[in-house]
Amino acid sequence: MIETPYLLFLGDAPDQLAAKVAIGIKDWRPENAVGQFRMEGCKADLGLKDMSLTEAREAGAKTLVIGVANRGGVISQEWKKVLVTALEEGFDLASGLHNLLRDEADLAAVAEATGRKLHDVRVPDVDYPIANGIKRKGKRCLAVGTDCSVGKMYTAMAMEAEMRNRGMKATFRATGQTGILITGDGVPLDAVVADFMAGSVEWLTPDNDEDHWDLIEGQGSLFHVSYSGVTMALVHGGQPDALILSHEPTREHMRGLPGYQLPTLEALRDTALHLARVANPDCQVVGVSVNTQNMSEDDAKTYLAAIEADMGLPATDPFRFGSGKLVDALAAL
Amino acid sequence: MIETPYLLFLGDAPDQLAAKVAIGIKDWRPENAVGQFRMEGCKADLGLKDMSLTEAREAGAKTLVIGVANRGGVISQEWKKVLVTALEEGFDLASGLHNLLRDEADLAAVAEATGRKLHDVRVPDVDYPIANGIKRKGKRCLAVGTDCSVGKMYTAMAMEAEMRNRGMKATFRATGQTGILITGDGVPLDAVVADFMAGSVEWLTPDNDEDHWDLIEGQGSLFHVSYSGVTMALVHGGQPDALILSHEPTREHMRGLPGYQLPTLEALRDTALHLARVANPDCQVVGVSVNTQNMSEDDAKTYLAAIEADMGLPATDPFRFGSGKLVDALAAL
Repeated sequence: MIETPYLLFLGDAPDQLAAKVAIGIKDWRPENAVGQFRMEGCKADLGLKDMSLTEAREAGAKTLVIGVANRGGVISQEWKKVLVTALEEGFDLASGLHNLLRDEADLAAVAEATGRKLHDVRVPDVDYPIANGIKRKGKRCLAVGTDCSVGKMYTAMAMEAEMRNRGMKATFRATGQTGILITGDGVPLDAVVADFMAGSVEWLTPDNDEDHWDLIEGQGSLFHVSYSGVTMALVHGGQPDALILSHEPTREHMRGLPGYQLPTLEALRDTALHLARVANPDCQVVGVSVNTQNMSEDDAKTYLAAIEADMGLPATDPFRFGSGKLVDALAAL
Repeated sequence: MIETPYLLFLGDAPDQLAAKVAIGIKDWRPENAVGQFRMEGCKADLGLKDMSLTEAREAGAKTLVIGVANRGGVISQEWKKVLVTALEEGFDLASGLHNLLRDEADLAAVAEATGRKLHDVRVPDVDYPIANGIKRKGKRCLAVGTDCSVGKMYTAMAMEAEMRNRGMKATFRATGQTGILITGDGVPLDAVVADFMAGSVEWLTPDNDEDHWDLIEGQGSLFHVSYSGVTMALVHGGQPDALILSHEPTREHMRGLPGYQLPTLEALRDTALHLARVANPDCQVVGVSVNTQNMSEDDAKTYLAAIEADMGLPATDPFRFGSGKLVDALAAL
């Protein structure tokens, strides 16, 4: 659990895209973002107040979150100067970088001396149990994709926001680095040891109120041969009551696998539902979430209408048209 | 890679069952078993020659394999005395125990000083790649189960032996601790980090001669919610050309999951084949392997005949009736 709120470290980001994690925090948990810290040459700007470390501490920030990718996988000396000072000023540090904060001898030593925490969210810090398959109270929704990176996290985040607006009980459950940094908690599922994957998902989505929904962040795809085992652990460990199908219609092949075509939404529906019912016989497919960023608005609307007609399921692009239809479907279950 | 042949350490095994790993080595790789080492009070006996460490070294043994479970997860002082002496005498040590040899300070120090290796086969010692899904040369067969522990390893081992007897090119590919100790090599799949599971299976079953068969050791079950992600990685990383369905008909519920019924063989056939064809569109289900140890011989024969009639697939218990039918089916592909 990462202490909030955050000061968002943008470093010397070469462009806005490099600050993806910080943007996610600002979009989805604005109350966690006290301000931004930018170094000379930083080309990203979240529109938050620029703060010094001292100012951010006075404003209540507890953790400096590295909200930007580093160049060449190296934590530079310029960054180090800020990070070490932040520890000395009383901040914890949190990072989803491939190279770990804890592996930097200077950061580790200063954190030790100051009693501050280094959160490397790429690696698990919990001994997860083996999944026991016992039915848990409360409701769970999982987005499953025809492919990786088709908008599963965005869909779950958008649904959580809409549900909270409606006064429904809903919690986004992060299973990847970005989601963990945004919410301050979660399971870095792709880094969990095989035997404990499903158990980590059970741990992440415990018993809850009967009318509470966990919106579980999906990973990979049952049809992506590199990562399908991770997806399977979500389908069985998550015991979803509701599945959302996620798709990106213009993709020409599976991400990173030129020889592999995307499955149809119908194939995904049948496969995912069949497998999900092993863990939860009442599971339903409730809607379709389409990432239409590469389509005109007219084409997107036509495409979504065709899915609704063909599949009899509500279909939307949560980014473009909101997630209301999907939340309606959950509420109707 | 563990150096062969072995001296099999039976320690103070309380009964024959505790020596399961050693029995597997003797049954499947007798040429690897130079002799057995038994301590006072040992109740297991493989029928191999009892040897001192010196005798075994003279007979060519390279590695002392711990072929027995330890009591209470502790490596006792009595064992330590033998293990340390073995290192001093020039043996490597290999173990599938939960508690690792390398975590014992004395063993680690003596191994370091003598230049000997400690093989803890429960933990991976390779940086596996992410799976790339590229079609590999050669043939692969995978046993998939209705449940865990239904005889998948035995089936693959028995098929390998039968194929070698017939002069076919065949290699058992171990994915669990026992299999790795038996063959001296493999991937401890349940201990691999999630993102690399399928890649580790690709690594284990590389390009080979067109008429060569890898017999991949199965793990878990697509229907076992605790471990289905591991099974999925085998189905997609292994790119099987042939699937064998494995079953134990008298089991009342999924192993360790009292609330879960076993799927039918038909459900396993359809689910596994559908998923396997994502990675290999030519995959076929070629036969059924049934563990009939809890049935009379008549009942077993009746049961197998019924499967053959209902499913149109050859069915056998490889332990009781041999694996010939399954090998015939592979040879006919």
